[in-house]
Amino acid sequence: LIRRPGLRRPSTVFFLSDYGAADEFVGVVHAVVARHAPSTRVIDLAHGVPTFDVAAGAATLERAVDHLGDGVVLAVVDPGVGGSRRAIAFQVAAARGPRWFVGPDNGLLMPAADRRGGVRAAIELVRGDVPSTFDGRDLLAPAAAALSRGVRLTSLGPAVDSQGLERLAPPVLLLESVDSGSSGRIVAVVTWIDRFGNVQLAARPSDLAAAPTGSLQLRVGDASGPPPAIAAQPVRRVGAFVDLAADELGLLVDANGHLAVVLREASAGERLGVSVGARIELAWGP
Amino acid sequence: LIRRPGLRRPSTVFFLSDYGAADEFVGVVHAVVARHAPSTRVIDLAHGVPTFDVAAGAATLERAVDHLGDGVVLAVVDPGVGGSRRAIAFQVAAARGPRWFVGPDNGLLMPAADRRGGVRAAIELVRGDVPSTFDGRDLLAPAAAALSRGVRLTSLGPAVDSQGLERLAPPVLLLESVDSGSSGRIVAVVTWIDRFGNVQLAARPSDLAAAPTGSLQLRVGDASGPPPAIAAQPVRRVGAFVDLAADELGLLVDANGHLAVVLREASAGERLGVSVGARIELAWGP
Amino acid sequence: LIRRPGLRRPSTVFFLSDYGAADEFVGVVHAVVARHAPSTRVIDLAHGVPTFDVAAGAATLERAVDHLGDGVVLAVVDPGVGGSRRAIAFQVAAARGPRWFVGPDNGLLMPAADRRGGVRAAIELVRGDVPSTFDGRDLLAPAAAALSRGVRLTSLGPAVDSQGLERLAPPVLLLESVDSGSSGRIVAVVTWIDRFGNVQLAARPSDLAAAPTGSLQLRVGDASGPPPAIAAQPVRRVGAFVDLAADELGLLVDANGHLAVVLREASAGERLGVSVGARIELAWGP
Repeated sequence: LIRRPGLRRPSTVFFLSDYGAADEFVGVVHAVVARHAPSTRVIDLAHGVPTFDVAAGAATLERAVDHLGDGVVLAVVDPGVGGSRRAIAFQVAAARGPRWFVGPDNGLLMPAADRRGGVRAAIELVRGDVPSTFDGRDLLAPAAAALSRGVRLTSLGPAVDSQGLERLAPPVLLLESVDSGSSGRIVAVVTWIDRFGNVQLAARPSDLAAAPTGSLQLRVGDASGPPPAIAAQPVRRVGAFVDLAADELGLLVDANGHLAVVLREASAGERLGVSVGARIELAWGP
Repeated sequence: LIRRPGLRRPSTVFFLSDYGAADEFVGVVHAVVARHAPSTRVIDLAHGVPTFDVAAGAATLERAVDHLGDGVVLAVVDPGVGGSRRAIAFQVAAARGPRWFVGPDNGLLMPAADRRGGVRAAIELVRGDVPSTFDGRDLLAPAAAALSRGVRLTSLGPAVDSQGLERLAPPVLLLESVDSGSSGRIVAVVTWIDRFGNVQLAARPSDLAAAPTGSLQLRVGDASGPPPAIAAQPVRRVGAFVDLAADELGLLVDANGHLAVVLREASAGERLGVSVGARIELAWGP
Repeated sequence: LIRRPGLRRPSTVFFLSDYGAADEFVGVVHAVVARHAPSTRVIDLAHGVPTFDVAAGAATLERAVDHLGDGVVLAVVDPGVGGSRRAIAFQVAAARGPRWFVGPDNGLLMPAADRRGGVRAAIELVRGDVPSTFDGRDLLAPAAAALSRGVRLTSLGPAVDSQGLERLAPPVLLLESVDSGSSGRIVAVVTWIDRFGNVQLAARPSDLAAAPTGSLQLRVGDASGPPPAIAAQPVRRVGAFVDLAADELGLLVDANGHLAVVLREASAGERLGVSVGARIELAWGP
């Protein structure tokens, strides 16, 4: 294998999966990376992604990627393991942050890669005679380790067309402005509910450019479908959790630049009775 | 930024939070520390502190702190994030063990700091224009990283009066000796129930100096309030779990020097039906 | 303490326990290893072993051990802590992989040690006046740290007979072939149900050498006891999860070389209603 020139310092593998904390999956991958690249550090990004939930894994990685330094992203949420889906590795365009990504070709890596300038060159990792149920250990971890110690991407497998990589459908977001702008609404899907119960939406502050700065009306349910599951309730736009009274629903810009529905020291997700994939309507006007 | 002289080896950041294991919060903080201080090691103390529970986080850190080597403690349990509570960093007096502490000024750090000789010098970390919902990532982790690579405390922010730092109310403990010492009781709050169901009390063996060495009577409930929730039951003072018969309640000195109510290979917390904050009465005499 | 000659590079401690993720137990052990062996890396294998479940811990370690590099295994699942069970450390015969093992003498380490060529030399770690409820922190972690930095095994305690170390009873497996081989069955105990709900059996493909390659009949329950809990249902032998239709039970060779009953993107453990210790009958023929 051919080394890249000029690699100066031990690198980092940033590792995300749906392996959970109970079993030895994560630990074994750490051990495999250490065997293949003894000087590489492994930083666990998250392993609590719901099992088989590629979209949740992709959203998690997208939220984290701008905060990572130089290194290799290794991500495994892989319901198609052992089947015809390809395993891939690629380099992204951004000069700073993680330069290489390794994982299944099922869309998991792409939202994060897009934030890092998009895919510049991609290869397929070809499973030889290794077993087919634990690619994370047997195929992906060795590749990430190799990249972290300076092995050239092109020496790891045949080139593939980066335009042909799988992509997930983007989360649903509907923008609607009526009555010459005096009233309007957006409908956004819930992309994440964190440990604190904050409900992150597939919407950003700019999507509410036409809305007033005070309170909006929130409803849970599909905008174009049957009657909403619960009645409209006010939600107040605030800058921080502490601006809210106890039990008052708030809407703030979270640490990732998304809109999030929150309560102060309580779970907005439980209060609204929603989970990831639910749709939230935010409306204003007479 | 000015370096301290004489720093010889890469340092350690000891990281505790209520971030949990499911989301990417912990991983992102690791990545931020690695970006700001590439040679620093991060050791996770615990991230399963109940959300927003500053007292539980403080107790966890207090239990751990005597076992830590040189380095920086980074602790984040922070219901007031984004509000008027200050973020702080300080140095403690003890020459060995962790020298610097970084976290919110809400009492979280103080019991551990007291065990390390108390606060010697403190500064405020001033949030500039960074977002206000993830101080752990944006404000506290960079400060901990800076201290770990030798940046002087006083270069990180304006000095504050260490006497004015917030403190939590201490856990409740009532000592009562009656009948010229032939009978007596203590009432102690439950400060922790660990994974094994051991019920740690806010009391130490010295608080039972007047009690006999055999069995005591245990009741759950508030000492001065209504009738206790359950009848008194015997609890036997033992040196180790294996001294107990199956299903026999024991009282031992746990690994942190506290009294703990335990069962052998079973959960005393479930058996007593208590959680953190409950009060346990231990009584003796006729 | 006497160093082994020729140790060239910082070593690794591979750490497994039933300490869970909520409390500070794991973090404190990391800190203790770092204090005693500052250059040693600690890799967490798993800490979600069910509390007190020595057999589950032993199975986890056995699955992981072949993937580990040079270093020290530190494993703690220890219901007998503080009692008469010994704490031990030993060296295994295999020249590659982890050379030293540290833990309680309760059988936990032995299946993994057997995979590494068996125990070559063993010593007892004698608890002096350290407290008796947290040997992982006070006795075992310092010993693992010492071995990782090159201290000789024999300098850590008195030699013990490696033939006298405790062993667990092996998992139950019954092989039965009837009707001149045209029909037959095996009964295997469930040794592990992973996060994805895959049901690992105490059986390997060779145990089904006499069985056909297509579908088998699966029943849950004890082979020699009362009627099985549920009726027989077909299970199809496949090479990968993706070979299965939705809701079709499959039998594959998992990443550890064991037979496992699985569903595609769903939990076979929930579907069968089984947990670790249950017995699965696989039968074939008229």
